[in-house]
Amino acid sequence: MTDFSTWMLTCQTHMENVLADSLPAAGIAPSRLHDAMRYAVLGGGKRVRPLLAFAAGEATGADRSRVQYAAAAVELIHAYSLIHDDMPAMDDDALRRGKPTVHVEFDEATALLTGDALQSLAFEMLSTEPLADDAASQLAMVQLLAQAAGSRGMAGGQAIDLDSVNTALDLPELEFMHIHKTGALIRASVLLGARCGTLADQDAVALDHYAKCIGLAFQVVDDVLDAEASTATLGKTAGKDAAQNKPTYVSLLGVTRARELAQELCTDAHAALEPLGPRADRLRQLADFVVERSF
Amino acid sequence: MTDFSTWMLTCQTHMENVLADSLPAAGIAPSRLHDAMRYAVLGGGKRVRPLLAFAAGEATGADRSRVQYAAAAVELIHAYSLIHDDMPAMDDDALRRGKPTVHVEFDEATALLTGDALQSLAFEMLSTEPLADDAASQLAMVQLLAQAAGSRGMAGGQAIDLDSVNTALDLPELEFMHIHKTGALIRASVLLGARCGTLADQDAVALDHYAKCIGLAFQVVDDVLDAEASTATLGKTAGKDAAQNKPTYVSLLGVTRARELAQELCTDAHAALEPLGPRADRLRQLADFVVERSF
Repeated sequence: MTDFSTWMLTCQTHMENVLADSLPAAGIAPSRLHDAMRYAVLGGGKRVRPLLAFAAGEATGADRSRVQYAAAAVELIHAYSLIHDDMPAMDDDALRRGKPTVHVEFDEATALLTGDALQSLAFEMLSTEPLADDAASQLAMVQLLAQAAGSRGMAGGQAIDLDSVNTALDLPELEFMHIHKTGALIRASVLLGARCGTLADQDAVALDHYAKCIGLAFQVVDDVLDAEASTATLGKTAGKDAAQNKPTYVSLLGVTRARELAQELCTDAHAALEPLGPRADRLRQLADFVVERSF
Repeated sequence: MTDFSTWMLTCQTHMENVLADSLPAAGIAPSRLHDAMRYAVLGGGKRVRPLLAFAAGEATGADRSRVQYAAAAVELIHAYSLIHDDMPAMDDDALRRGKPTVHVEFDEATALLTGDALQSLAFEMLSTEPLADDAASQLAMVQLLAQAAGSRGMAGGQAIDLDSVNTALDLPELEFMHIHKTGALIRASVLLGARCGTLADQDAVALDHYAKCIGLAFQVVDDVLDAEASTATLGKTAGKDAAQNKPTYVSLLGVTRARELAQELCTDAHAALEPLGPRADRLRQLADFVVERSF
């Protein structure tokens, strides 16, 4: 087994290449839109969701030539959500992945359409590329991503987030928001990657629980980093949540307890993977990475 | 055969019921988002795209219990595009279907998320409901809608439209824009409706040509109505194109020649349907309706 950082770099490079090949070339009309799509998606990001898809695929013996498209589809949904989230009507943020956000680099109308077109492209990819043994399974994968992205998934989580500005959420309410806002797509990453291989029912339950723990841990750590790290380290505006008076795990629990919670969720994630044995080792390493990361 | 206006009303009522049942109930959290989704989609609109899907389904012997979901999916994509198109960053319009637009009635952030969530819901519907004899055909239908909605379809057409403000497009350039902006989704309506039934290859070619003619005719008539009708009749702001100095069929050809062009496209649409015989009669009636409408 290659060491984790080599594996991660290999996956990230592979993902970048697949995305670069799948996005319309910048020269193709409408070129400004295609420029913006490539600008938003390529050359940045930790690719946490694709890494989860690749690791889950390894746990179910999936061929990477399939998983790469499931991973890319999820990353396109994630990228579109960042573009819209950064717009003035939402978070109004000028910096993302160390670069000007799409509406700053291009304009608001282009940012709106770029997000829209990336969402369509995700579903085009998931319905076009060969991902599963049979078409019925693949159709179920499209359904899974659509639900994860929609009003009872990611978009719904963002709506709850909007409503929570200047209101006092308690811990269960905060968790409810994050299960939707970031958790739904992280769950989809794990399950779509796994479904590219042979996924037994009991393993699906285990992976689902793993994904839930990881999704929350990811968010808790995000809140800690937002409170503690610098804008330069994060590549996005730090301290934003406190400035907007948004409830976070840090505002509710304090940094120390938030860090402990992330560690507990990581332990739960490991426990969930127990039945899968060594083929889930990459998922274990990713759980540790998510909690220990500093950016 | 029931008369056309009865058929149309039956289809529109049926569509309204299917959409009302398919959209998340307003009380379900996040309730503001779900309210906005229902506000945007229900209780208005000519439902031209669903009508085309139903008529195409009749031409291929499709069961209406299938076509209704293809029709609804296309209408959800159309509804999302109107919400985003009306936002201040794009057309900045306050009136749609005789009601305040979503960002006026709710707010910009909600409008953004509502459009996003409606797009996801369209793909959820198309991948969930039983629409075709086999899953592979249905997967191809998802692909068709995703391509029609994306950067080389509707979203791309809107990007070209944005770039065309204050520029002098010639007739081929204007046609290129509309083939994308409105034509792609109208084509998808016809083909998705048809694919719910038994569609022979040569009929697919005929329907594709019909859809292209109807899509352009629809746009030419839209331009004429925008120039001539009142805001009250249209239920949306009239005279907008001229005010924004956008190229239209009327600005390029004048009203008289534009009306003639719409009639020629209608004749072409009828000619395309020749091989399909009487089972395409609803499509013929719709072609006439699109050209003769006054709203």
